[in-house]
Amino acid sequence: MTPARWIPLAGWLRDYRRDLLARDLIAAVIVTLMLVPQALAYALLAGLPPEVGLYASMLPLVLYALFSTSATLAVGPVAITSLMTASALSGIAAPWSAAYVGAALVLAALSGLLLVAMGMLRLGFLANFLSHPVISGFVTASGILIATSQLRHVLGVEASGDNLVEMATALVSQWKQIDPLTLAIGGGVWGYLLLCRRHLKGGLKRLGLAAQSADLVAKAAPVTAVIVSILLAWSLGLGERGVALVGEVPSGLPLLALPSLDPTLWSSLLPAAVLISLVGFVESVSVAQTLAAKHRQRIDPNQELIALGLANLGAGTSGGLPVAGGFSRSVVNFEAGAATPLAGAFTALGIAVATLSLTTPLAFLPKATLAATIIVAVGTLIDLSAIKRTWIYSRTDGAAMLATLVLTLVHGVESGIMAGVALSIGLHLYRTSRPHSAVVGRVPGSEHFRNVRRHAVETDERLAILRIDESLYFANARYLEDTIMALAASQTGLVHIVLACQAVNVIDASALESLEAIKDRLRDAGVSLHLAEVKGPVMDRLKRTKFFHTLTGQVFLSTYDAWRVLHKGNASSSSPATLKQPVSP
Amino acid sequence: MTPARWIPLAGWLRDYRRDLLARDLIAAVIVTLMLVPQALAYALLAGLPPEVGLYASMLPLVLYALFSTSATLAVGPVAITSLMTASALSGIAAPWSAAYVGAALVLAALSGLLLVAMGMLRLGFLANFLSHPVISGFVTASGILIATSQLRHVLGVEASGDNLVEMATALVSQWKQIDPLTLAIGGGVWGYLLLCRRHLKGGLKRLGLAAQSADLVAKAAPVTAVIVSILLAWSLGLGERGVALVGEVPSGLPLLALPSLDPTLWSSLLPAAVLISLVGFVESVSVAQTLAAKHRQRIDPNQELIALGLANLGAGTSGGLPVAGGFSRSVVNFEAGAATPLAGAFTALGIAVATLSLTTPLAFLPKATLAATIIVAVGTLIDLSAIKRTWIYSRTDGAAMLATLVLTLVHGVESGIMAGVALSIGLHLYRTSRPHSAVVGRVPGSEHFRNVRRHAVETDERLAILRIDESLYFANARYLEDTIMALAASQTGLVHIVLACQAVNVIDASALESLEAIKDRLRDAGVSLHLAEVKGPVMDRLKRTKFFHTLTGQVFLSTYDAWRVLHKGNASSSSPATLKQPVSP
Repeated sequence: MTPARWIPLAGWLRDYRRDLLARDLIAAVIVTLMLVPQALAYALLAGLPPEVGLYASMLPLVLYALFSTSATLAVGPVAITSLMTASALSGIAAPWSAAYVGAALVLAALSGLLLVAMGMLRLGFLANFLSHPVISGFVTASGILIATSQLRHVLGVEASGDNLVEMATALVSQWKQIDPLTLAIGGGVWGYLLLCRRHLKGGLKRLGLAAQSADLVAKAAPVTAVIVSILLAWSLGLGERGVALVGEVPSGLPLLALPSLDPTLWSSLLPAAVLISLVGFVESVSVAQTLAAKHRQRIDPNQELIALGLANLGAGTSGGLPVAGGFSRSVVNFEAGAATPLAGAFTALGIAVATLSLTTPLAFLPKATLAATIIVAVGTLIDLSAIKRTWIYSRTDGAAMLATLVLTLVHGVESGIMAGVALSIGLHLYRTSRPHSAVVGRVPGSEHFRNVRRHAVETDERLAILRIDESLYFANARYLEDTIMALAASQTGLVHIVLACQAVNVIDASALESLEAIKDRLRDAGVSLHLAEVKGPVMDRLKRTKFFHTLTGQVFLSTYDAWRVLHKGNASSSSPATLKQPVSP
Repeated sequence: MTPARWIPLAGWLRDYRRDLLARDLIAAVIVTLMLVPQALAYALLAGLPPEVGLYASMLPLVLYALFSTSATLAVGPVAITSLMTASALSGIAAPWSAAYVGAALVLAALSGLLLVAMGMLRLGFLANFLSHPVISGFVTASGILIATSQLRHVLGVEASGDNLVEMATALVSQWKQIDPLTLAIGGGVWGYLLLCRRHLKGGLKRLGLAAQSADLVAKAAPVTAVIVSILLAWSLGLGERGVALVGEVPSGLPLLALPSLDPTLWSSLLPAAVLISLVGFVESVSVAQTLAAKHRQRIDPNQELIALGLANLGAGTSGGLPVAGGFSRSVVNFEAGAATPLAGAFTALGIAVATLSLTTPLAFLPKATLAATIIVAVGTLIDLSAIKRTWIYSRTDGAAMLATLVLTLVHGVESGIMAGVALSIGLHLYRTSRPHSAVVGRVPGSEHFRNVRRHAVETDERLAILRIDESLYFANARYLEDTIMALAASQTGLVHIVLACQAVNVIDASALESLEAIKDRLRDAGVSLHLAEVKGPVMDRLKRTKFFHTLTGQVFLSTYDAWRVLHKGNASSSSPATLKQPVSP
């Protein structure tokens, strides 16, 4: 229980040197430039005033830096949790209203408390319930929803909706209201960003720039788009010509204040907060792990839960919205050379400076520019080919992914992700409820045993050896009974059944009851039940049971031992042996 | 698609001979004697008029006989589904009212439709979601609830409640109202039945009766109690002296009629119908399997779903309540020599005769006698020692059992069983989310590999072999990443990691993504990833993936092969091998 256990900073700060400081400062400047427009954009996406995004990029980053084990994860508002925030708050109040802003604070604080609690209780494994196909389907659907929701800003129309169908219908019905000037700005930025993404890096490299620098410059393209848009809007008076601008952003730092403690509000936001916590955690941890591994570093997922939780608590008490680790931002941070979590704290400082000094120009930023930036950014989230790839690998996983995708698009983020989780679990239980099993026979002259249906092997009508390729637990306990009783009913001369358990890692209480029932039923039918190749931990448990002490057969170390002892001519057929100790050759 | 496929009767009726007929008739007479009081009692338990129990013992039995594969399962009203029926209908209407009786019909019909649908779609595996600890905790709790609910009839007081606490409180507050005459009847029957259960069989055997006959006579004790009670009530005029009697039972057979088709009623009863179907099916199938196995016969669980479903549809269209296979009744049927499902059809005939001829005497039957019969019957359901036994075997299973038991007692049957199911699934996922794994080394001079922490084995600082003792799927995919990246970070000279997969039965899409991420991260860190002992079905799937075709290492048939090739002095250290075909010695 050293301080370094809870505050990793205490560990690495002692070795902090000037060269690390320089690297962290450079990374912070670059990430700040990238984060300012993203913070504004994701606040607008969440239905919140733009300054909320900036506030969520100060205190949360400092708290995260203090408690994180990841040197490079850049937290702040991100696309998916902002979309989930908008979805959670849509039934609570009108966007931009004081009640809505207040509810966002509660959502951030509640997510933060949940994350901290999960970290303290070491419940990081709960994130495992979000299987990869579910996350992947959900992320793709979110990308599509976000891009569609931003189209109206690019077109300059009023069109909103709670799902893809509503949004698309609203957009189509509004096509006559499209504002040409807004479309020119939005479309121009969109095209510029796509061009930069596809060709800028290669072009710069051909001009002799180092690959890493070329990459960073290409990723800074949104910053130039923002600057040029602001200059255009200011010089041409685009605001008066009907182009929607971000408008006045209050200058100054956020005040610290507790969020509302209304229990009704807290309990109505709880389900959404659980999902935002889990999704935010999963995204953050996978980004952090990927980047840490490049330097053979490790992150501690439970410590990350605490750090991310405190960051969200910070957001909830300093005027922000739920935050998480952003993928593109963290990659930029990593490639810009961030050496320690302090880079994040310096970024917070940069955002503070921007909030104090840049609000006047930011007021001229067209919303269409931000929307185009978001659309291009979330384009990387959409991966429809993953459905086909997953389907080819596994039908059940593909089905879970598709269901999550479709339900998220037509029914919203919460039902999409919950249906995906339920389906993943159900399909897993189904898959393991009919485990692969094989009656095996002896490869002549060897100690090896193979499936009697696939190989020419030696068998014995008085003896059946069944290999079960799965742990035995409640989902397949009944299938085990069916399989063994069918085997006993099909072979009239049968006297011995041997269960070969080399693939059985667990036998739970349901499977134990089934084994007990199987043993009794086989005994009534004159057949004794033997076990072979039982693993150490499984055997330790079995030894404490009545099943083991009333076993009608023996326990063999290997399948070959069972064959040697029970094969006709070797074993006495009259009375089943009752030896309980493993028999070794 | 022969008729025998859907109507098993078509198969066995051709071989029906006179000796089988005699056996079935004798069994039917004995079961009828036992079923009449049980049918009345379970109808009263469900809050229904007594004749409903008799109606549920006619058409359902005939339909079951036509479609079942079990020669001996005796269906009809049973204690647990009657309790669940009472619980489901308690919020719908007042017991004994026409609306309540109508709702019971809907519940039976709905359960029947669900069971038939599950059978047609071969969804019998859904019953697996009810793990053994959950069923066991639920059955014990139900037994306690039933016995407590019947105490008021034995004491002659008005005291009801929705859970154990309410019922106990009501009973205690009513103790001054206890009716001595009722208590004398109820207590007398209770004591008589307990005496018979404990001593009658042994006594009869000492008098020279065969064990089987002695058993049957002992099991018929409730019949004698019923007859004696009726005679006492009639001759002493107990009804006028304040003892509650069953009262007038309409004579005559039930009319066939569709149940109410009110969609609100159907949808409000759906959750309860799902649980009643599953619980009834699980109980019926385990009894049927146990009895079938004694003659090396088999039952087909999906066909049983259809038969049980049609029986319930029959109950819902002929004035009954939900039915299932009863344990004690089926055992009696089996021991009395029932040879085919026709025994059940003959029992239905017996019940019809009783309904036409015995209603006058049955009107004099004291409710206290029925209550005492139920209390003694459900006593066999209560198995508190199972909690301790299960806890000793597995903490997680014991916890699931205890939670189901406690929640059922204090919160009712539906929340109890659903919490148990959720807990079973959650605990299973948790248990497999941190699979046992071991870094293994070579037992010197052999081809065997053992855990480096437990055995003195040969290791290699450039090579780590990790054995994972579990299938790889979403619940443990992240744990796998953590484990392998920790291994890579802990051993600085590492160049090769070999995953030994002999216990891996499945790799799902989530685990595949994790392996892909692991492979890439290891590559960035200069470590190549190899696989060994991959099972055939797992390998077939892997061969279709990008992971497999971009694997930085090799796939070895055995761990020893991996060791032979990669061990220092054997492998070239400069470039990781890229061979993709399994390497055999």
